[in-house]
Amino acid sequence: MKYLLVLLLAGLTSSAQIQKEQLNLMPWPQSIALNDGNFALTKNFKVNVTGNPNPRIFGGVTRFLRRLDGRAGIFFEQGFITKLNEVPSAELQINCTKSGKIGLYEDESYHLDIKQNKITINATSDLGALHGLETLLQMLQNNNTSFYFPNAQISDFPRFTWRGLMIDAARHFQPIDVIKRNIDGLAAMKMNVFHWHLVDDQGWRIEMKKHPKLIELASDGMYYTQEEIKNIVKYADERGILIVPEIDVPGHGSAILTAYPEIGSKVITLTGGTSEKNIQGTAIATYGIERNAGIFSPTLDPSNPKTYQLLSELFDEVCPLFPGAYFHIGGDENEGKDWDANPKIQEFKKKNNLATNHELQTYFTMQLVPMLKKHGKQLMGWEEILTKNMSKEAIIHSWRGPNEGVVAGQSLVDAVKKGYKTVLSNGFYIDLMYPVASHYLNDPMPKGADLSTEEKARILGGEATMWTELASPTTIDSRVWPRTAAIAERLWSAENITDVENMRKRLDVVSFRLEELGLTHIRNKEVILRNVANNQNTNALDEFTNVCEPLKGYKRNKGGTEYQMYSPLTLFADACTPDSKDSLAFDEAVNQYLANKTPENKAKVAAFFTKWIAINKGLNELSKNAPLVQPVLPLAQKLNDASQELLLVLDNKSTLKADDLKSLIEQCDSKDHADVELGVYTSLKKLL
Amino acid sequence: MKYLLVLLLAGLTSSAQIQKEQLNLMPWPQSIALNDGNFALTKNFKVNVTGNPNPRIFGGVTRFLRRLDGRAGIFFEQGFITKLNEVPSAELQINCTKSGKIGLYEDESYHLDIKQNKITINATSDLGALHGLETLLQMLQNNNTSFYFPNAQISDFPRFTWRGLMIDAARHFQPIDVIKRNIDGLAAMKMNVFHWHLVDDQGWRIEMKKHPKLIELASDGMYYTQEEIKNIVKYADERGILIVPEIDVPGHGSAILTAYPEIGSKVITLTGGTSEKNIQGTAIATYGIERNAGIFSPTLDPSNPKTYQLLSELFDEVCPLFPGAYFHIGGDENEGKDWDANPKIQEFKKKNNLATNHELQTYFTMQLVPMLKKHGKQLMGWEEILTKNMSKEAIIHSWRGPNEGVVAGQSLVDAVKKGYKTVLSNGFYIDLMYPVASHYLNDPMPKGADLSTEEKARILGGEATMWTELASPTTIDSRVWPRTAAIAERLWSAENITDVENMRKRLDVVSFRLEELGLTHIRNKEVILRNVANNQNTNALDEFTNVCEPLKGYKRNKGGTEYQMYSPLTLFADACTPDSKDSLAFDEAVNQYLANKTPENKAKVAAFFTKWIAINKGLNELSKNAPLVQPVLPLAQKLNDASQELLLVLDNKSTLKADDLKSLIEQCDSKDHADVELGVYTSLKKLL
Repeated sequence: MKYLLVLLLAGLTSSAQIQKEQLNLMPWPQSIALNDGNFALTKNFKVNVTGNPNPRIFGGVTRFLRRLDGRAGIFFEQGFITKLNEVPSAELQINCTKSGKIGLYEDESYHLDIKQNKITINATSDLGALHGLETLLQMLQNNNTSFYFPNAQISDFPRFTWRGLMIDAARHFQPIDVIKRNIDGLAAMKMNVFHWHLVDDQGWRIEMKKHPKLIELASDGMYYTQEEIKNIVKYADERGILIVPEIDVPGHGSAILTAYPEIGSKVITLTGGTSEKNIQGTAIATYGIERNAGIFSPTLDPSNPKTYQLLSELFDEVCPLFPGAYFHIGGDENEGKDWDANPKIQEFKKKNNLATNHELQTYFTMQLVPMLKKHGKQLMGWEEILTKNMSKEAIIHSWRGPNEGVVAGQSLVDAVKKGYKTVLSNGFYIDLMYPVASHYLNDPMPKGADLSTEEKARILGGEATMWTELASPTTIDSRVWPRTAAIAERLWSAENITDVENMRKRLDVVSFRLEELGLTHIRNKEVILRNVANNQNTNALDEFTNVCEPLKGYKRNKGGTEYQMYSPLTLFADACTPDSKDSLAFDEAVNQYLANKTPENKAKVAAFFTKWIAINKGLNELSKNAPLVQPVLPLAQKLNDASQELLLVLDNKSTLKADDLKSLIEQCDSKDHADVELGVYTSLKKLL
Repeated sequence: MKYLLVLLLAGLTSSAQIQKEQLNLMPWPQSIALNDGNFALTKNFKVNVTGNPNPRIFGGVTRFLRRLDGRAGIFFEQGFITKLNEVPSAELQINCTKSGKIGLYEDESYHLDIKQNKITINATSDLGALHGLETLLQMLQNNNTSFYFPNAQISDFPRFTWRGLMIDAARHFQPIDVIKRNIDGLAAMKMNVFHWHLVDDQGWRIEMKKHPKLIELASDGMYYTQEEIKNIVKYADERGILIVPEIDVPGHGSAILTAYPEIGSKVITLTGGTSEKNIQGTAIATYGIERNAGIFSPTLDPSNPKTYQLLSELFDEVCPLFPGAYFHIGGDENEGKDWDANPKIQEFKKKNNLATNHELQTYFTMQLVPMLKKHGKQLMGWEEILTKNMSKEAIIHSWRGPNEGVVAGQSLVDAVKKGYKTVLSNGFYIDLMYPVASHYLNDPMPKGADLSTEEKARILGGEATMWTELASPTTIDSRVWPRTAAIAERLWSAENITDVENMRKRLDVVSFRLEELGLTHIRNKEVILRNVANNQNTNALDEFTNVCEPLKGYKRNKGGTEYQMYSPLTLFADACTPDSKDSLAFDEAVNQYLANKTPENKAKVAAFFTKWIAINKGLNELSKNAPLVQPVLPLAQKLNDASQELLLVLDNKSTLKADDLKSLIEQCDSKDHADVELGVYTSLKKLL
């Protein structure tokens, strides 16, 4: 509220000096000083580039101009920037010392200096300059009639070198335009790694010219052509983003084994009368593309030379598509059931002195190291690859936590202590629908651990992981954004930037601005609600999304079989997001009221109840001609009932016994309806 | 209102018999009979395909299942349909006699029969079956808890064989995803031609491997790769859509001549001291990609053998990308200025007995005929190619009308009388922002003309043309849809289906359903308004779009130089569309009031004024922190002033002289603010 007031006042006079607290920068820069005065934006605004940058800077500047122009509606004269020193007199001067190399450890720093009549961005490489342009866009201010940049000096650089987002394109396939717009989002948030999960039980997504069976049999026709992949790699390079592809082996193997069952681990013992091919008393199992979510047994056979022959050939075709130095081979969630049941594999373990399935998997993984090295690639894998014989060059991707029965991020500490480089994803599982604060406060640098400087240096950074069992092309953006922007800040900004409330304020604005990149996290909510409402007015539904959140963790899609991977996600829950807006506002109102029971504070709380009672009425009206509203009604009814009673409680008019009131409120803790829960429940309980 | 009531009642009882008038089919089928009873949709709903269809039917059925499932939220068990007779017992049986060929004159008819427990679609070809599936989707009804199809028998076929949409990808480049979702829209509306305007003064959009200069110098990096084009052609084929590519020559030549100035017509007479290359006293002019909108002089030199050499090579590379039998060569708006000024060209004309520039252009065009025929392509061109020596095989694309100083559609009559086949676009210029009714009532079959059966048969159909001087990827869908759906009905349905009010009612629902294809015509409005509002509440802006329409005809972007082709279109006008919602509702209220001045009717009219006064207030509030709202204010003020006074008039309390009231209302006829006009003006005038 204080901020709002200051903003409104600032809006009234063009020369009002802006305060740091009013800026909506994200990630927050390492150093910023505001000075008196402003740079006024005009139609003649022009940019000039000098130095020795990579040519990607020209496209970057052109896109910057278009976005700035879109916000300001000024129609700049300058069109496309195509060469060095094109407009020496330009107001914005960008100088880069050298061409930036896509990858880790590149100098991404920049200095942005905004003066009354001149703006300069100085950076070692164009990658830093691109970051500087994003900051400049975020510096844009306005009064009632025009736009300007406040005079400032900013020096900035990232805290971690690996600032990534993973998108799973295997479960719900995500078309090229989804990937592109999310890469734009990454670049806007100064992130630099896009981890592309391309193969899983539910599909193989890479066109293979030498092994066409993989797409013919294991993609449902949903895959990226090699040309498309090359285009995406180029697109990412132009935006300073490294692409790390992933082919998940030896587990999560249903798709690969659908095409090549002969390298699977499953044994079928023939008892006669089967139509399957007879091979010395056992038969090759058949596999199918997995349609459900979960952990499945199909696993590559590590004892079969053909397995390595095929993988080597696959890497030979896939690696050249990705110029980056890292290749993710998955390695997670291999439960070893089919290995245990296969006598040939057991024999192989014995012969090779491999005591456990873990050791067997390490044997398997170590065969892949040279296949990748041949193409100049370093192997990366999920933390399960971390065993005593694993190559020290492997990068360990830490992901497990309490959900998997282990200590959160323990593998990260283990890895760096053993000399491995590592990336943290535990705590950054954005598909699990946890609130933004939980991700924001999740630091890759472990608080309690006793780590040496050298060990700390092995912590490369972190990565948000967007698994797509429950995200379609229509909904994925609202699962990735805006929470990934907060993760970006964790990975870029100083360790002590941890004020959640301040982050939320900035995130609202950042989220709005991400729309200009084509991201659909805001706009597609109404699309889903219109479908749910059957083209009736969506107001009641819209209001209800403000207190509802999708079930968290793994509570939605129980057993992984409620929805198939081809099921469209067009339900009320798909329009909801974590951090439901009114839940936060309600909590604040409740806290204020409990601290100070003034009539004003009471009225604020009561207003929510009145609103929720009206929502329930609205949803009931709507449901008369909208079957998809029906599943939402019981939860709205529960909130209505609690609200009705709490209104009486506020006025000391309730005649309900304490226990009955408690149970009325506890009904609101339901997770049984429409795959959502009420974000207001904990605040309601405070009123008991 | 009557419809609404019937719908609501229908919603209450699942077995209520639906009436034809309640169906929201578009295009309306040739024959439909409703029967008692319904087919209830369940999770087990399955489809089976038999006969000899093209395999495109399998993808078509799979997409049908996903869309139906998305609407009903049922999560069908059936996933992907991949072969014939997969589920013989399925409830929906589709039989096709033969494989449909993409092109004109194919049998696209179908018979859809919905019975209590069985639905059948019988069609000659899979193209007809795809149309049948679209009709079935439109037949979906619901009560309060479930979805069903009413029993019915439908026999259907198109009135015209050419039902097209042109998208201009040269002015504002339109990325692949824009093209794909619009192709989906065409298929949903049973259209069958996508005309892709790929080259114009503002850019060459086709990757050329043998002539890379065209994309290096004349595309600004915005072009389709050949692989992308092939993918789009395949995508269109899978949806029954023919692609007709266009390379516009000899006029609209700035892009081609930017890469190949040596085949341009412009003469530069050397007067010394120039840096340009000296060729016997004249020099080759330099050309640049055009940044403005309009008609420009750069024109290919028809007297230069190199021109034909180059064009022949270009066609050799481009034609194989498009398997269809038609190639559009433009041919429009060549004003001949550079020809007149070029002595060499004048000499050439004389030598070849070409009396006029028209004859010279015909000479030019005739050289292209064999170049295209070599690749099995028939030449098509805008109506200017229609001259006495033009090959009778050429298809004449009729487009000019009063805007161009000629009788609307006259060239269509001329063409068929002279033996040419023809397609109508005059009256279908959707970029001009005319109301849907004007397009809907524009019949390719001219009313008054005395045409023989043979001549009539030469009228192939019509095509909506979406020029993109004022349409970006963010806004184009709202310019194309939903009006193109009404054009689709004109081209498919019987001649006597012309009830505008009934069409509007159906169009509302059809427009909503088009969203599921990814079309952004509804959702992107808020995106633009959020930007205009500077992330403040958009309600007032949203309400104001309901009475504002973008300037019509060629009134926006005066002189073609206000906006450059690279300017983003993020203004209030870009969020507005023709047929502003409240303008229609207000007109109805005014008519009712004037016919019968009851207090109720007066109150209805007054409610609009009250709303508009509130909008003005809201916009003024908003503008305090939103510079892009400023240009909108004067118009809102004018509507406010008229509304204030008309409220008094309604109550007989106005003290204004008749002339002053008139001028107060006439102020609302303004076209001077924010590139929009008030859709309510004509209705306001009725109140004088």
